[in-house]
Amino acid sequence: MDAFLLDSLIRSFLAEDIGHGDITTDAVFDSNPEITAVFAAREDLVCAGIIGVAARVFQVLNPAVVIESGLDDGQKARAGEILLRLRGPVKDLLRGERVALNLTQRLCGIATMTRAYVDRVAGLNTRITDTRKTTPGLRLLEKYAVRVGGGHNHRYNLSDGVLIKDNHIAACGSITMAVARSRAAVPHTVRIEVEAENLAQVRECLECGADIIMLDNMSVEEMGRAVQLINGQALVEASGGVDLETVRQIAETGVDIISVGRLTHSAPASDISMDF
Amino acid sequence: MDAFLLDSLIRSFLAEDIGHGDITTDAVFDSNPEITAVFAAREDLVCAGIIGVAARVFQVLNPAVVIESGLDDGQKARAGEILLRLRGPVKDLLRGERVALNLTQRLCGIATMTRAYVDRVAGLNTRITDTRKTTPGLRLLEKYAVRVGGGHNHRYNLSDGVLIKDNHIAACGSITMAVARSRAAVPHTVRIEVEAENLAQVRECLECGADIIMLDNMSVEEMGRAVQLINGQALVEASGGVDLETVRQIAETGVDIISVGRLTHSAPASDISMDF
Amino acid sequence: MDAFLLDSLIRSFLAEDIGHGDITTDAVFDSNPEITAVFAAREDLVCAGIIGVAARVFQVLNPAVVIESGLDDGQKARAGEILLRLRGPVKDLLRGERVALNLTQRLCGIATMTRAYVDRVAGLNTRITDTRKTTPGLRLLEKYAVRVGGGHNHRYNLSDGVLIKDNHIAACGSITMAVARSRAAVPHTVRIEVEAENLAQVRECLECGADIIMLDNMSVEEMGRAVQLINGQALVEASGGVDLETVRQIAETGVDIISVGRLTHSAPASDISMDF
Amino acid sequence: MDAFLLDSLIRSFLAEDIGHGDITTDAVFDSNPEITAVFAAREDLVCAGIIGVAARVFQVLNPAVVIESGLDDGQKARAGEILLRLRGPVKDLLRGERVALNLTQRLCGIATMTRAYVDRVAGLNTRITDTRKTTPGLRLLEKYAVRVGGGHNHRYNLSDGVLIKDNHIAACGSITMAVARSRAAVPHTVRIEVEAENLAQVRECLECGADIIMLDNMSVEEMGRAVQLINGQALVEASGGVDLETVRQIAETGVDIISVGRLTHSAPASDISMDF
Amino acid sequence: MDAFLLDSLIRSFLAEDIGHGDITTDAVFDSNPEITAVFAAREDLVCAGIIGVAARVFQVLNPAVVIESGLDDGQKARAGEILLRLRGPVKDLLRGERVALNLTQRLCGIATMTRAYVDRVAGLNTRITDTRKTTPGLRLLEKYAVRVGGGHNHRYNLSDGVLIKDNHIAACGSITMAVARSRAAVPHTVRIEVEAENLAQVRECLECGADIIMLDNMSVEEMGRAVQLINGQALVEASGGVDLETVRQIAETGVDIISVGRLTHSAPASDISMDF
Amino acid sequence: MDAFLLDSLIRSFLAEDIGHGDITTDAVFDSNPEITAVFAAREDLVCAGIIGVAARVFQVLNPAVVIESGLDDGQKARAGEILLRLRGPVKDLLRGERVALNLTQRLCGIATMTRAYVDRVAGLNTRITDTRKTTPGLRLLEKYAVRVGGGHNHRYNLSDGVLIKDNHIAACGSITMAVARSRAAVPHTVRIEVEAENLAQVRECLECGADIIMLDNMSVEEMGRAVQLINGQALVEASGGVDLETVRQIAETGVDIISVGRLTHSAPASDISMDF
Repeated sequence: MDAFLLDSLIRSFLAEDIGHGDITTDAVFDSNPEITAVFAAREDLVCAGIIGVAARVFQVLNPAVVIESGLDDGQKARAGEILLRLRGPVKDLLRGERVALNLTQRLCGIATMTRAYVDRVAGLNTRITDTRKTTPGLRLLEKYAVRVGGGHNHRYNLSDGVLIKDNHIAACGSITMAVARSRAAVPHTVRIEVEAENLAQVRECLECGADIIMLDNMSVEEMGRAVQLINGQALVEASGGVDLETVRQIAETGVDIISVGRLTHSAPASDISMDF
Repeated sequence: MDAFLLDSLIRSFLAEDIGHGDITTDAVFDSNPEITAVFAAREDLVCAGIIGVAARVFQVLNPAVVIESGLDDGQKARAGEILLRLRGPVKDLLRGERVALNLTQRLCGIATMTRAYVDRVAGLNTRITDTRKTTPGLRLLEKYAVRVGGGHNHRYNLSDGVLIKDNHIAACGSITMAVARSRAAVPHTVRIEVEAENLAQVRECLECGADIIMLDNMSVEEMGRAVQLINGQALVEASGGVDLETVRQIAETGVDIISVGRLTHSAPASDISMDF
Repeated sequence: MDAFLLDSLIRSFLAEDIGHGDITTDAVFDSNPEITAVFAAREDLVCAGIIGVAARVFQVLNPAVVIESGLDDGQKARAGEILLRLRGPVKDLLRGERVALNLTQRLCGIATMTRAYVDRVAGLNTRITDTRKTTPGLRLLEKYAVRVGGGHNHRYNLSDGVLIKDNHIAACGSITMAVARSRAAVPHTVRIEVEAENLAQVRECLECGADIIMLDNMSVEEMGRAVQLINGQALVEASGGVDLETVRQIAETGVDIISVGRLTHSAPASDISMDF
Repeated sequence: MDAFLLDSLIRSFLAEDIGHGDITTDAVFDSNPEITAVFAAREDLVCAGIIGVAARVFQVLNPAVVIESGLDDGQKARAGEILLRLRGPVKDLLRGERVALNLTQRLCGIATMTRAYVDRVAGLNTRITDTRKTTPGLRLLEKYAVRVGGGHNHRYNLSDGVLIKDNHIAACGSITMAVARSRAAVPHTVRIEVEAENLAQVRECLECGADIIMLDNMSVEEMGRAVQLINGQALVEASGGVDLETVRQIAETGVDIISVGRLTHSAPASDISMDF
Repeated sequence: MDAFLLDSLIRSFLAEDIGHGDITTDAVFDSNPEITAVFAAREDLVCAGIIGVAARVFQVLNPAVVIESGLDDGQKARAGEILLRLRGPVKDLLRGERVALNLTQRLCGIATMTRAYVDRVAGLNTRITDTRKTTPGLRLLEKYAVRVGGGHNHRYNLSDGVLIKDNHIAACGSITMAVARSRAAVPHTVRIEVEAENLAQVRECLECGADIIMLDNMSVEEMGRAVQLINGQALVEASGGVDLETVRQIAETGVDIISVGRLTHSAPASDISMDF
Repeated sequence: MDAFLLDSLIRSFLAEDIGHGDITTDAVFDSNPEITAVFAAREDLVCAGIIGVAARVFQVLNPAVVIESGLDDGQKARAGEILLRLRGPVKDLLRGERVALNLTQRLCGIATMTRAYVDRVAGLNTRITDTRKTTPGLRLLEKYAVRVGGGHNHRYNLSDGVLIKDNHIAACGSITMAVARSRAAVPHTVRIEVEAENLAQVRECLECGADIIMLDNMSVEEMGRAVQLINGQALVEASGGVDLETVRQIAETGVDIISVGRLTHSAPASDISMDF
C-alpha cells in the first residue's frame, strides 16, 4: 500500500478523532516522556496494516515515534501474541490510540475472514475476490486487507472495469449489443464482464465473446452446468449468497473466481489491545 | 444530521467509487431516460439514512432525482418492505447505486443492532451509548445511526469530553490529582469522567468529585456494589464486554449508561436491495 | 496547541500572503544567505504563540530555520525585550515575516488583554473565559491565547456544549422543558447551561436542574441576588457588558465564571517588531 | 466581492463553529418553523458585508433563507437602526447566527474606522489605504471592508506588488541597484515602490526612477520636505504611526497615500445584535 | 464527461485566473446587464467541450448564464462558424472568458488532431489511442477530447491497467515471469500488456499468454512480421514515433491499436474567439 | 519557483497518474533496490524545471531519492545531453516517471520556444512576455518556464493588473472614463493598461494618462506610427498574431513589450527520455 496515498487518509481520520485537541491528555500531563506501547492480539487473527497503517498513524502525529518490532502483514497471530511494539512520547501515543486501533481491528478482521474463505478452497484453482461493497472512504485499505488475507481484488471502481448488469442489457436490448457497445467504447486494456442469470444468457455471452461471465445467484448445480458449457472460453465468476458453508462446493464446480461481499461489508473487527 | 456537513462526505465517497467515470454505463446507454428505483429491505431492520443519506447520494449527483416515497429514520421495516422510491435519470441512478447501498446498509445495520440493545433494557433507566470505536471517516453518520436506533452518543472526539484512564492516573500519581488538573484546565461546560477498575478507585472518584465514573470490565456483582457505593453522587457508566446476553443484567445493577463498542465496530450490514 | 492541526492553518495563511511568490525578494536577491532575525516587543505584553506559532511559520516554509532562543508562552515581556531569535535563509525569513507578525501580534494582544482581566479578579475564585466571538478561522489559536493569558475556554463550538437561550426556551414553552429535552438528547458528558435574564428564570433553572446558569446582562446587584439564590446548586456564569472597570465588582458577587467577548473580538494587536 | 470566492470561506467558518452539529438546537426543536430575524446596529457604524456576507452565511446553510430588506454596504447606520431582515427556518437562523455576527461586526468595525480616517482627510487629495496587516485568512473580506469605508487597497500580497525595504536595499548595496533589478525582473504592469527613511534615500529613489516612494516613519516636517523634493515625479506614500490625531496633518504635507495598519489589525468590532 | 467531477476542476481553474477578483471589471462597471457572447471558430476544428466545458465555466460562476445554442462535441466546424452562444450578466461573461477559452482551445486542438489521425486510417480496423502523456491535472478532459475526436483511450492511470516494460522484465528475469507474477496479482478484469522490442520478445509474449503485445519503436517491416507471428493470438499495439505521415503505413501492417503521445502532449490549441 | 507552492501541485498530479497504486510495479517487484535514473535530451532544448520540478516529483514520493547531478534551469542542452541523474528505490522512480516527464517536457518546450523569440529580438530593447493563455492549473509553472527562457511575465491573473478591453470601454462610453474609473478604484501599485485598436484610441490613451498602451492586432506600419505618437509617454505593448517570422519586425518598431500567447498555449513538448 502506498504511503503517498495513505498519509492524507490518516490525517483526516486523526482530525475526526482529535477535534481541536485531546483535552484530557493536555490537562493531565505536564511533561511528555517516552514510553513503550504494545499492540497484542486478543484472539487469533491474520495481520493487516500492523506496520504500514497502525504504526504509521503515530508517525504522522510525530515522526519521532519508533517501531521496535512488528509482525508482517499476512502473518497469522495467536491470541495473546504481540503484534507491534512502539516507543514514543506518551501524549502522541495516547492521541493516536483510537484511530490506530479502529483501523487495524477492521483490517485484521477483513484479512482474517478472507483467509478463512481462501483456506476453504485450498487445493482448488479458484480465486476469492472482494466486491465494491466496501466501507465508503476505506476502499484502498479494505482491498489491501483482502489481498493480505490471500484474496484477490475485483475491479476497484466504476471506471476501471466493465460489468454489464441487467439494466445495461435491458437498455441495449440484448447481451450481444451491450457487449458490442462496450467493446467498441472502452480501452482495449479492460476485459468485458457480463452478469448472467441463466444458461441461455451464458450461451449468449459465449457467442458474443464476453471475456468474463458472472453467474449471478445461481444454484450450485446450475453453476456446474454453466462451467461445463463455458469450458474455458471465458473466465467464470460466481457471485451471490456465498458463505463459509457453501464456498467449497461452489469452488468445486470449477468457477475461476468467487466474489464475496461480506469480506468487506460484514467482517467483525478483530479484537486487539493497546497497552502501555 | 446536517446536510451542510453531509454533502462533502457524499462527494468524496462518490469520487472513490466512480473514479473518472462509469465506463460501462457510458458505453451502453445512448440516452438517459427517467426510471424508478426502489430500495427494499431483504431482512427486518431499523431504518437509518434512508431519505437523508441514500436519497441524498443521488441528488448530489443530479438534483433532478426526486423522492417519491421513503420511510422515516427510526421506523422498523419488515423483510420485503419498500424503504425508498426514487425517480430520476437512469445513468445517475446506476452511478450512485453502490455508494447509496454501502452507506444505508451500514447505517441500518447499526441502528438495528442499537435497537436490539435498547429493547433489552426496556423499562429500566439506562442509556445505551456508542463509543469512539467508529469507522474512521464515518463517525458523523454512525453516531447518527446510533441515535436513530434509540441509543445515545458518548463524547464525539477527544476534544469534547474528559475521560481519565489508567495512563492519565499513572502520570498524575492519583485519580484525585488527575481530576483536579482536569477540572482546573477544561471548560466548565464539560463533565469529568474517570475509568475505575475496582471499588477502591470508585471511592477515590467519589471523594474527589468525579462527575461520571466508568466501571471498566467489572463483573456484574462488582458493578452492583459500585452502584450502591456511588448512590447517585455521580453518573455511572458500565463498559467492556457487553453483549446482548449480558446487557439486561448489567442494566439491572442500576448503572446509568452502558457503552457498547460493537454497535459501530461490528454491526453486520443490513441486507437491502435496489431494483429498477 | 497541536502542531498536527496548526501546520495546515499556517500553510493556508502563507498561501494567502505569498500568492504566487514574493516578487520583490525574488528579483532582488541572487543568493540566499543565512541571517538572524529578532522579534522584539515594542510594548509590554504577554507572550502567546512565540515559538509554537511565529517560529513555526518559518519552519513550515523551510525546515532549515533554527530557533536560537524564544520566550515561553504566558511569560510577560517588557517593551524592548527580545521575544524570539531565529536563524535561517534570508528569503524564507522575508517571505514569512508578515504572516508570523500578523499571527503573533493578534495572539499576544489577546493574551495580554486576558491577563489584565485575570489580574483584576486576583484572589477571587472566578474564571475569566472566552466566548464563541472569535475571528472566523482562528478559533483554535485565539482560544489558545486566552488560556495562555490565564483565562479559561468556554465551549469550543455548537457541538460540544449546550447553551439554552431565549429562542430555545420560547420554542419549548419553558426552561424546564428545554432542559428536559436537552438532558434527554445530548451526551451524558456534557453539562446543560441556561441563559437566565431574571431571578424568576434563575429559580426555574434551579428547579429543573440546570448545571450552569448564565446571568445575562444583569446588574451587579441582581447578579448578587442570583448568586445567593443559587447558593452552589449550579455553576454561575456572568455574561454581557463586562469590561476592565466592572469585572472585579462582578466577580465579587461570587459568580464562578465571567465570559468576556472582547478578549477575542476586540483586543488590539500587540506591537511587535521583526528586525534582521 | 466575489460570491464565487466567498462561499468556500463561509463554509469553512461554519464548519469551525458548528462542529458536528448544533446539539442544543437539535435537542430542543422538534419542528423547524420559519421566523424572522433582524440585525440591528447597537452603535453608529458604516455597513460592510450586510447582504453579501451576513445574509450569505444563512443562504449557504439553507438556500431557502430570504432577505426581506438590508442596507447597502457603505451606508452609515445609526445606533438602533435595522441593518438586515431575514426570513427562514429557525434552526438555520440559529446555527448561522454566531458566524454571521462575528464576520459582520468585524467588517463593519473596519469600515467604520476607515470612514473616520477618510473623513479626516476630506477635501484633500489623499488616499487612505490598508496594509498587509490583515487577519490571516480574512484578507479578501477585510480589504473589501476598507474599500466600503471609502479607503483604498494597497497591494494584496507579495506577488502583486513590489515594495523594496531596507533588507532588499542592503542585499543589493543600493536603492538604485534594487530598483534596477526589480524593474528588470517583474511584470511591466507593476509599479516599483521603495521605502525611504530619509531625504537622501528619497533623492536616490527619484534618480533611479522609483514609481512610488514610501516615507517610512518620518516626522511631518520631514515628509513635507520630501513631498517638495519629489514634486510629482513619483507617488508619495506616508507610513508608520498614523492615527486619527495625526492623519490630517500628514495629508496636508501633500502625500498621495497614507497607509494605516490599524484599520485591519486593531479596529474594534462594531456592536450588532441579531434578534428573532 | 461527468459534471460531478468537472465542476471542482473548473472551480480550481477559475480561482487560478480570477485571483481575489477581476479588478478591471469591478472598477469599470457599475451595473451588470445581460449581454450575449459568441464563441466562433477561427480555423477548421473538431468541437470538444463546447457545451459541457466552455459553457459550464460560466454557469459555475453564475447559474443564471443561459446557453442559447451550441454545437455538439465531435461535430466539425468551419472557420467562422459559431460554436456557442451564451446570454448572461456581462461581469460573469468577462470573468470566465479566459478559462473557457483556454480549456476549449486545448480540447478542440486535441480532438482535431485525433480526428486527423483517425481519418488517415479510415477503412482499416485500427484504433488510434492516447497515452498517459497528458497535461498534469487535465487527464480527465484530454482523454475525453481524444474520444470526441474519434480516438480511443489507453489505460487511464497506473492502477487500471498492466503494462510490463523493460524495467519490469529486467527485475523478473524474463517476460514469462513478469507476466506470471502480474497475472497472479492483478484483478481478473484487467488485461496484461507487454512492451516487446523485437520478434524474440514477441514470441515469448505469445508463449506466456500476454493479452496485448506492444511493438515498441519497431520499423514498419518488423511490425508487419510481428503481426503475422502473433496472428490473432493477442491484441497488437504499435507505439513510438507515430506521425501523420507514418500512421497509415503502420495501420496497414494489421496492428489493432496505434498509440499516439502527441495527441495530448503537443496538439496546438485551436483558434477560437469569444465576442460580445 | 516556490517549493512551498509546488509540492501540493505535484501531489495532485501524482494522485491523478498513480490512482490507487501502480499495479504492474507492485506485482512484479518483490524488493525495492536502489537504481540510477537518467533524464536526457533527445533534441536541443532550454532546461526548465529539471531540478526544481522533475527531481522534486520523486522526492515528494520518497524523500530518499537523491539528485546526483542536474543542469540548472535556463541552460541550453544539446540532443543527447544528460539533464538529470537520480538515485533511489526503483519502485519510486517508476511510479514518478510519467508525471516528471510530462511536466519537464512541457516546461522545457515553453522555455525553448521562449528562448527562440527572445533570441530573435536580441540587441533590441523589447521584452517578450507571456499572456494568460496558459494551461489551466499550470500557470505557476508555465510562467516560470517563460522566465527561465529569457522572457518576462505579463500580469498573473485578473486581480493583479488592469487591462481595459473593448467591452470595458463600451461599458464606460470612452477610454477616458474607463481609465478614470480604474485609476480611482485600483491600488496605486498597479499600472493601467488599455487595449487600443487604432491611432485615435492611442491618442485618447495618451490624453487620459494610460500607463501602458496595448496595440491590438495592428499592422507593423500602424504600430510604428503608434510608437512615434506615444513617444515614451507610455509603455507600448504589441499583441496579436506574433510569430517567429514577424517578431523581429514588430520589435523594430520600438514597442517595449511583445506578448506571445503561443509560448504557453501551443509550445510542443520537448523530447526527453528517462532511462534506468
